[in-house]
Amino acid sequence: MTNHPSDPAHDKVPRDAANDYTPEMAERRRNFLRQHTGGALRHLSHYSLDPATLPGNIENFVGVAQVPIGLAGPLHLVGERAQGDFYVPMATTEGTLVASYNRGMRLLAECGGVKTTVVEQYMQRSPAFLFDDALAAREFGRWVEHHFEAIKAAAEATTHVGRLVNIYQYPIGPMRHLRFNYTTGDAAGQNMTGKATLAACEWIAANHPGGARFLLSGNMDTDKKHSQLNMLVTRGKRVVAEAVVRKEVLERLMGVDSAEAFALRQVSNVGAFLAGSANNGSHAANGLTALFIACGQDVANIAESHAGIVYNQLLANGDYYWSITLPSLIVGTYGGGTGLATQRECLELLGCYGSGQADKFAEICAGLALAGEISLSSAVIHGDWVSSHDRLGRNRP
Amino acid sequence: MTNHPSDPAHDKVPRDAANDYTPEMAERRRNFLRQHTGGALRHLSHYSLDPATLPGNIENFVGVAQVPIGLAGPLHLVGERAQGDFYVPMATTEGTLVASYNRGMRLLAECGGVKTTVVEQYMQRSPAFLFDDALAAREFGRWVEHHFEAIKAAAEATTHVGRLVNIYQYPIGPMRHLRFNYTTGDAAGQNMTGKATLAACEWIAANHPGGARFLLSGNMDTDKKHSQLNMLVTRGKRVVAEAVVRKEVLERLMGVDSAEAFALRQVSNVGAFLAGSANNGSHAANGLTALFIACGQDVANIAESHAGIVYNQLLANGDYYWSITLPSLIVGTYGGGTGLATQRECLELLGCYGSGQADKFAEICAGLALAGEISLSSAVIHGDWVSSHDRLGRNRP
Amino acid sequence: MTNHPSDPAHDKVPRDAANDYTPEMAERRRNFLRQHTGGALRHLSHYSLDPATLPGNIENFVGVAQVPIGLAGPLHLVGERAQGDFYVPMATTEGTLVASYNRGMRLLAECGGVKTTVVEQYMQRSPAFLFDDALAAREFGRWVEHHFEAIKAAAEATTHVGRLVNIYQYPIGPMRHLRFNYTTGDAAGQNMTGKATLAACEWIAANHPGGARFLLSGNMDTDKKHSQLNMLVTRGKRVVAEAVVRKEVLERLMGVDSAEAFALRQVSNVGAFLAGSANNGSHAANGLTALFIACGQDVANIAESHAGIVYNQLLANGDYYWSITLPSLIVGTYGGGTGLATQRECLELLGCYGSGQADKFAEICAGLALAGEISLSSAVIHGDWVSSHDRLGRNRP
Amino acid sequence: MTNHPSDPAHDKVPRDAANDYTPEMAERRRNFLRQHTGGALRHLSHYSLDPATLPGNIENFVGVAQVPIGLAGPLHLVGERAQGDFYVPMATTEGTLVASYNRGMRLLAECGGVKTTVVEQYMQRSPAFLFDDALAAREFGRWVEHHFEAIKAAAEATTHVGRLVNIYQYPIGPMRHLRFNYTTGDAAGQNMTGKATLAACEWIAANHPGGARFLLSGNMDTDKKHSQLNMLVTRGKRVVAEAVVRKEVLERLMGVDSAEAFALRQVSNVGAFLAGSANNGSHAANGLTALFIACGQDVANIAESHAGIVYNQLLANGDYYWSITLPSLIVGTYGGGTGLATQRECLELLGCYGSGQADKFAEICAGLALAGEISLSSAVIHGDWVSSHDRLGRNRP
Repeated sequence: MTNHPSDPAHDKVPRDAANDYTPEMAERRRNFLRQHTGGALRHLSHYSLDPATLPGNIENFVGVAQVPIGLAGPLHLVGERAQGDFYVPMATTEGTLVASYNRGMRLLAECGGVKTTVVEQYMQRSPAFLFDDALAAREFGRWVEHHFEAIKAAAEATTHVGRLVNIYQYPIGPMRHLRFNYTTGDAAGQNMTGKATLAACEWIAANHPGGARFLLSGNMDTDKKHSQLNMLVTRGKRVVAEAVVRKEVLERLMGVDSAEAFALRQVSNVGAFLAGSANNGSHAANGLTALFIACGQDVANIAESHAGIVYNQLLANGDYYWSITLPSLIVGTYGGGTGLATQRECLELLGCYGSGQADKFAEICAGLALAGEISLSSAVIHGDWVSSHDRLGRNRP
Repeated sequence: MTNHPSDPAHDKVPRDAANDYTPEMAERRRNFLRQHTGGALRHLSHYSLDPATLPGNIENFVGVAQVPIGLAGPLHLVGERAQGDFYVPMATTEGTLVASYNRGMRLLAECGGVKTTVVEQYMQRSPAFLFDDALAAREFGRWVEHHFEAIKAAAEATTHVGRLVNIYQYPIGPMRHLRFNYTTGDAAGQNMTGKATLAACEWIAANHPGGARFLLSGNMDTDKKHSQLNMLVTRGKRVVAEAVVRKEVLERLMGVDSAEAFALRQVSNVGAFLAGSANNGSHAANGLTALFIACGQDVANIAESHAGIVYNQLLANGDYYWSITLPSLIVGTYGGGTGLATQRECLELLGCYGSGQADKFAEICAGLALAGEISLSSAVIHGDWVSSHDRLGRNRP
Repeated sequence: MTNHPSDPAHDKVPRDAANDYTPEMAERRRNFLRQHTGGALRHLSHYSLDPATLPGNIENFVGVAQVPIGLAGPLHLVGERAQGDFYVPMATTEGTLVASYNRGMRLLAECGGVKTTVVEQYMQRSPAFLFDDALAAREFGRWVEHHFEAIKAAAEATTHVGRLVNIYQYPIGPMRHLRFNYTTGDAAGQNMTGKATLAACEWIAANHPGGARFLLSGNMDTDKKHSQLNMLVTRGKRVVAEAVVRKEVLERLMGVDSAEAFALRQVSNVGAFLAGSANNGSHAANGLTALFIACGQDVANIAESHAGIVYNQLLANGDYYWSITLPSLIVGTYGGGTGLATQRECLELLGCYGSGQADKFAEICAGLALAGEISLSSAVIHGDWVSSHDRLGRNRP
Repeated sequence: MTNHPSDPAHDKVPRDAANDYTPEMAERRRNFLRQHTGGALRHLSHYSLDPATLPGNIENFVGVAQVPIGLAGPLHLVGERAQGDFYVPMATTEGTLVASYNRGMRLLAECGGVKTTVVEQYMQRSPAFLFDDALAAREFGRWVEHHFEAIKAAAEATTHVGRLVNIYQYPIGPMRHLRFNYTTGDAAGQNMTGKATLAACEWIAANHPGGARFLLSGNMDTDKKHSQLNMLVTRGKRVVAEAVVRKEVLERLMGVDSAEAFALRQVSNVGAFLAGSANNGSHAANGLTALFIACGQDVANIAESHAGIVYNQLLANGDYYWSITLPSLIVGTYGGGTGLATQRECLELLGCYGSGQADKFAEICAGLALAGEISLSSAVIHGDWVSSHDRLGRNRP
């Protein structure tokens, strides 16, 4: 940081238009930083990735963040796509996080593993079209419905992978907010859908009688932001993890009675409801973030991906059905940061690198989230419930 | 990943209770992984951090994620605490992100920089107390008010830094959800407040006539989750970045007319409102995540931190006042991952390592977010607004 | 109110299974009340409606509430269905409400009237289907898609009017929440859609391989409750009212400058956004409630109907485009209370009684809401903006 | 309704500034309506209230809406203020509503009645203060804290009843949204608090160094609108109704098993959570609206008042604890429409007319809401749960 008046010529971060992704340019930029800030930067420069692999991933490369990875597992999954034991690399600096997830995995393994299922998936871009009045906007909406196939063709002409599934319409005043829903193969697909939707909008503007004014995003995507809308209609993958936690195992490993856990879930549920929370569970964000960093995901999508709906039932035999639905989990196993050095290694550890693996990876995410829920919820109940002999379920609310 | 039946003895991740944070143990675990998955793991093992620094940050350490860092800047701030030009390290794998923020910074610098202010701060833990009926819960609430000083003393006995400022109360049925609000110095403070609140709850349970049953978190913290509550009453720091964007500069650098930008902001605002979004801006999550990874923040807190409220005004001379309020930004410059190798280097680049720097760092976060807003919003408007001669503000809604 | 111990035989409200809807039974019940409470009940008994018209509208009839009706208007509409000058009967006990709406109508008439349009409509019932796991629920969802025509036939067999348009699906854990969307002609249609959906669910349970367990409402209808979901995908009618308010008229009649009004709208918008409000406008509930009571609507639907999205633009000439979108307005002109004595008279005043009038009535509702917005917003701005010479738009945010 | 071109002189609703609240003026306006619409208006004119009582309640009085009232009860309450058997007048045109609430009351009476408690109360007005930047706004916030007593004095000088309890502050950008929280005795208090807050704001503007620009409402009141904020921090009264529903009675009267009801509550809870609903219960709006119309409440406040949080627990003996919390119930027993003819009679039936009765009336509202919850939830479960021998709680989620 410098406080002296700026000298633009001096202050500009060095770039080399022709040859920017080299160790030398990274070093030149580090030297620039050393000059400006006095830092030694001994660690940033320590990396094994090849800067030549970085175009499309970063600009003004100066080095790497070394984020420690801990190993949790095995996470035993009996999912639709993810089956078997997984050792999960978690990149984090928060102590006990890996240990806590590990504990949840142990319990789940003893209970036969986690069932995981991707139940819906869409990636989207949501342009807003503006008209002179609501009537024109409504008629436009009908026109869009009638020309869906042509719009779809225009959109899909820009991509080998993306498929436009449908277009949701949200009318406000003289506008029509459209939400273009695509499947995007194994890529998260934000860029793909942006490009395809722009092409579709241009087709619409060229073909709709009287033209059409639009804004490529009217903020109903809702990209890099949690929203109730994303929870409702899915952004990325909607994936469910569920398990029947055996009463005996919960008691033995966590020191928690299943009936009590279910009673206290009512407390957490209304707390989340009153708070207007994105998740009525405990901390899906923790595990997902650590996995996202390790595996080259777009970590900013934690904004959307951390949303969740926990739904539990106490079974007649005292076992405890526990599920978490992640309604807007955004992941990919292709493109983005997935091919970089350590990121690819981590995806490979999970058997999830490359095409055909995105659903499997999403299932691992959900299984991980469930392990974290069980572990932390149990800790909160076990550690803090004051009088163990004066429990819920004994004629007290 | 293995599909063969588990052999628990074989499958357990190796640990050494006495001496776990060594390169050797990391290598032993990598070997375990190699055996189970066949991966070579040539990159994970490439790091310069000292494993001996990791206790309290990670368990089952196996190596590091190398996340590329790009440099954006200078970000010119005229904040309360952050003043001058800052070169911002952004750890990301999303192409154009650094370039886009950089572009916003350039515009802001030409307009005199960003004013940044921390306007409120609290970290919290929210236990739920359960009673036989609502009347008992209400009376308990009054008792808590009357015993605030003693409760505060019990909480603060556990920490040198944390200060209990107040306790919000949220009654539901026979419960009293309490939200303990603390200041936590330069640490983000989740653990500190958890420990302090547990002590407070135990004091309450011991001293409240008839005792008190509680759950340390009733889900109104709301930790690692976005919530309307966090937006309303602050979690972490509430920080504002604001700038007057000059009409001429916006036109010249971004190709955007300020009156048109203001008109289209109305579109984005209602889109976000209808979507039930955590942020009526564009993508605060992007910049914050990249900075969080680089600087050793708890990245999972992007869940809370990405929330934002954009508030703009078109001034009489055509200049454009632009602000973003981050209502629940969770950052620290002490503890957590801030002292690790590259993380510390990045904080030092910003002059933000160690005590007394958290507010300054929060201001940089907000300034960064504003740069990102301006850059992306302008791109959306400039690139996609179809007919430049048929604009808003010409007697059309 | 009685405090003495209950004597069940004595305490039961008198009913006559065969002949309950008569003046005599109403009087017998009033006598019962007089005995129990000592009230004279001189006014409840004063009515001109014929109790014989009440089966299907009320049980245990004892008399009427006399709610005073004031007249506002003319409300000048240039809608799709509602065109001309309307005198609006408003049943309320809140002073100044009629006068305030009247003032807004006057302004709108001077500006050429209100454009009103119904842009979408659906009434719904949302059963939840429960399965053993998420996979089964997902497969069920596909089965529902493939059997839509048969499900539609089963639903529509129960009604002459209702048409099943589509079924939205919301997966959570092992469940599939379905939202059946119907058009319901001129009735609000809650009962119609409930009956039709029950028939559809029974058809599904009988025909889906392995049967199907369901709950007729899984709380995603969301009936008699505001929800973000209702705002997003419409419950009842989605109707827009819009007008270009002339700068000169706003200044002359309301003492408000249009540029200032637009600047202050930014304040209201972020206030509503931060509050997590159902409406970023002022008080649609007021006018709608008064009209609903007068016109025999199901007034409890104010819960859903009061939601709104205000979207404004300042035009280049200083005129002010003002719109309100009511996304979940539930009204009918047939069935329910529409045929009762005064209720029918009020609908007839508006030319809205009976079939073919529901859209017209919805447009009147929206026009009324817009009048109220303009009047109250202007009052807040005019009355309270302290220094008239030190206004927004003068290089201050 | 008229479609012919307006003749302003002709079209204006007749008023008599000096003597407007007379039967003759009402008749003159009805004649005006008859001329314009051709309606006979035989019923509107049938009323026993004295028009001379209407100033302050209505303008342009033309007659009354006759809303049929049905009697439900006895509602047996064992509340803090409401104790004994209450016969509840419900003004509605929705068939089965009275019968359904009646059924719930019967069950509750058999279970010993409903415990009701007002746990918090506040009425508010929320001005927004605007400054040049966030720093100035923050400093203003501190100034307000330091001058609370003087602000309170200014506010309370306008009212005999209202008391300013505290001021919540919500910072956004260069603004400070304040929420003035008052107690208002037995009046709902919207007008009282508006007047008091205006006085307070004017005092602030006059005394704050440099003055202060404000908007009397920045939309965080949130008046006549549901909001998460109102649910969190109470608008009007926060009142809880709770009962232990005996397993045997639930089975006998409703045909519903308590364990099954609890299992299905999980379904409704997540449905409401996902929908972003104002209430996780069934239909509090129904009963409250009917009672509000009958008792002269401001019915538009159903917008806020219908919000609710249902919290249940299954007790060890199979009995079922059921509670509903109404977080923003707005009622009064003094002022507004409470003194009008039938409205006062209905309040008197409940022993709630006049001062000192508002809490009691609020408790009746909550008890009524609970009766409605139990009745409708049971109907949904009993009627629609397909196979009675294949129930939840039998090792299925």
